[in-house]
Amino acid sequence: MADHAPPAPGWSVSRWFNADGGLSLQALHGRVVFLHAFQMLCPACVQHAVPQSLKVAAAFANTDLAIVGLHTVFEHHHAMSPEALQVYLHENRIRYPVGVDAHRDDDPGAHPLPLTMQAYAMQGTPTLVLVDRAGRLRRQVFGLVDDLRLGAEIATLLAEPAPAGSTPG
Amino acid sequence: MADHAPPAPGWSVSRWFNADGGLSLQALHGRVVFLHAFQMLCPACVQHAVPQSLKVAAAFANTDLAIVGLHTVFEHHHAMSPEALQVYLHENRIRYPVGVDAHRDDDPGAHPLPLTMQAYAMQGTPTLVLVDRAGRLRRQVFGLVDDLRLGAEIATLLAEPAPAGSTPG
Amino acid sequence: MADHAPPAPGWSVSRWFNADGGLSLQALHGRVVFLHAFQMLCPACVQHAVPQSLKVAAAFANTDLAIVGLHTVFEHHHAMSPEALQVYLHENRIRYPVGVDAHRDDDPGAHPLPLTMQAYAMQGTPTLVLVDRAGRLRRQVFGLVDDLRLGAEIATLLAEPAPAGSTPG
Amino acid sequence: MADHAPPAPGWSVSRWFNADGGLSLQALHGRVVFLHAFQMLCPACVQHAVPQSLKVAAAFANTDLAIVGLHTVFEHHHAMSPEALQVYLHENRIRYPVGVDAHRDDDPGAHPLPLTMQAYAMQGTPTLVLVDRAGRLRRQVFGLVDDLRLGAEIATLLAEPAPAGSTPG
Repeated sequence: MADHAPPAPGWSVSRWFNADGGLSLQALHGRVVFLHAFQMLCPACVQHAVPQSLKVAAAFANTDLAIVGLHTVFEHHHAMSPEALQVYLHENRIRYPVGVDAHRDDDPGAHPLPLTMQAYAMQGTPTLVLVDRAGRLRRQVFGLVDDLRLGAEIATLLAEPAPAGSTPG
Repeated sequence: MADHAPPAPGWSVSRWFNADGGLSLQALHGRVVFLHAFQMLCPACVQHAVPQSLKVAAAFANTDLAIVGLHTVFEHHHAMSPEALQVYLHENRIRYPVGVDAHRDDDPGAHPLPLTMQAYAMQGTPTLVLVDRAGRLRRQVFGLVDDLRLGAEIATLLAEPAPAGSTPG
Repeated sequence: MADHAPPAPGWSVSRWFNADGGLSLQALHGRVVFLHAFQMLCPACVQHAVPQSLKVAAAFANTDLAIVGLHTVFEHHHAMSPEALQVYLHENRIRYPVGVDAHRDDDPGAHPLPLTMQAYAMQGTPTLVLVDRAGRLRRQVFGLVDDLRLGAEIATLLAEPAPAGSTPG
Repeated sequence: MADHAPPAPGWSVSRWFNADGGLSLQALHGRVVFLHAFQMLCPACVQHAVPQSLKVAAAFANTDLAIVGLHTVFEHHHAMSPEALQVYLHENRIRYPVGVDAHRDDDPGAHPLPLTMQAYAMQGTPTLVLVDRAGRLRRQVFGLVDDLRLGAEIATLLAEPAPAGSTPG
């Protein structure tokens, strides 16, 4: 199955938090990436997906799993500005990198969906994405995922060998 | 116990949502009032207190219980503006009245705590308040309350007779 | 509604635990009674209904609510004997009275359902029963009940005046 | 770490359910084994550990993980007889193999703890055990384990190569 997995699209981020100098999917090549796309005012995100991501961060703290949040705002932009997101991250003690999904020309009016959300064809928030050590998109789920299965899926990818030439973090 | 309960302080609200023409504690005299003070970016509020308030609204829909939210912003004002609150209420399908706790001269710089929060000596968010049919403050809790006990406390107050001269809603 | 509630049927119990000298519904007249019918090997009972009953016991400890368990075995009698029940009560730290629902002539072969279960026309386990201060059957639910609503229902009955001539416990 | 893990002790079982002809740890060599020790009247077992084991069975149904229950009765033997266990397994729809931990000479009076429980030095129930493909004891926990971490631990062991000469089931 993994052999047929497509490469995960790159990220278009207009601003990073908790990542000095920014971050790119390419820079994480060789590591498993857990990306969770969310909006700070989406109820299922704040009640379930974000707390679960914090649990993932704690449970896999001793591994080289890269945990990345992506703020994919596609509605109510004024209420979910980068400044408001910064407060949200602070209040929820989110210390892993979180990027703001970019709009073309930084203009939400150009297209309702931000660029990374479009590139992954995400259907809404929350969406969870797993990228393997070879940079392939191995899992994408819109909605909630059970803890037991999520733990297993991440660990399965972590156990895969890094591709030749990669530099694990 | 009830005989010694103090009258609940009035509310200072700069803007109401879901309440055409506004609302006052006085106007609710004769009814039991469940007031929940929250901030839209406070994690315990959005993960526990607000969902519980929505459950209270559903469980007591057939009674004359008045459910009121109070947005008591005492930090990060720019991220929790009334406009952002409006989006929050919409996204969480909150249909009961919610007031924005006022700052003196509408200036958060005057005092960190908004006026109603000061009047009730609230220690933070979430805070839950129960006012009886006679307008007395019967319960105030900072933090989380068990569903079973909360249901019992509300029902106990609902079962008390309305004071003479009051007009139940 | 209460005026039209039927009197709750009496209980047929072959053996009591945690009740020296036994117990009867009549002896509880004047008090609100929370009766929960269960089987010690019924999964929904042990996972939800019994823990909830223990929470009810704690939440209403300061009231005159009478909490009573009824072991209504209608299958697998050898595995749910009174001796096994005694261990179950001990392991779960159940201190309130629990009766073993009687079979006619103490013969489970006579009729699959025990007598009290028949008298209340219970459909299975868990079943929850609320009896008011006047001995009337005010609520009977097969399955699970939400904590918030259960707390409210019990408190509502507790707030009703005792009938004339009753002796509250 | 795995290199220093000791071989998991064999099991002493007096009776198997859901396993025609019985089962042994040796027969499972080459597979990862999730063993959960429980008592059918231990509250933490029936409320948490057994439901979690059923979730593990569902989540890993497509893998070669072997799920095995072990009924380690060390008290109240009459109430947790093999016949009562059979009812418990039926009521909880447990379809994976479950063994009854044996007492020396089938006499619980000989030693309070059954033999397998002694061999693993288990401190009580519930206890969870993970054995790797090479038959080594890789994890043993008395008490509850978080779903996310448990899923990850199982998947990590599943991803390890089978030892040379083993025949995966």
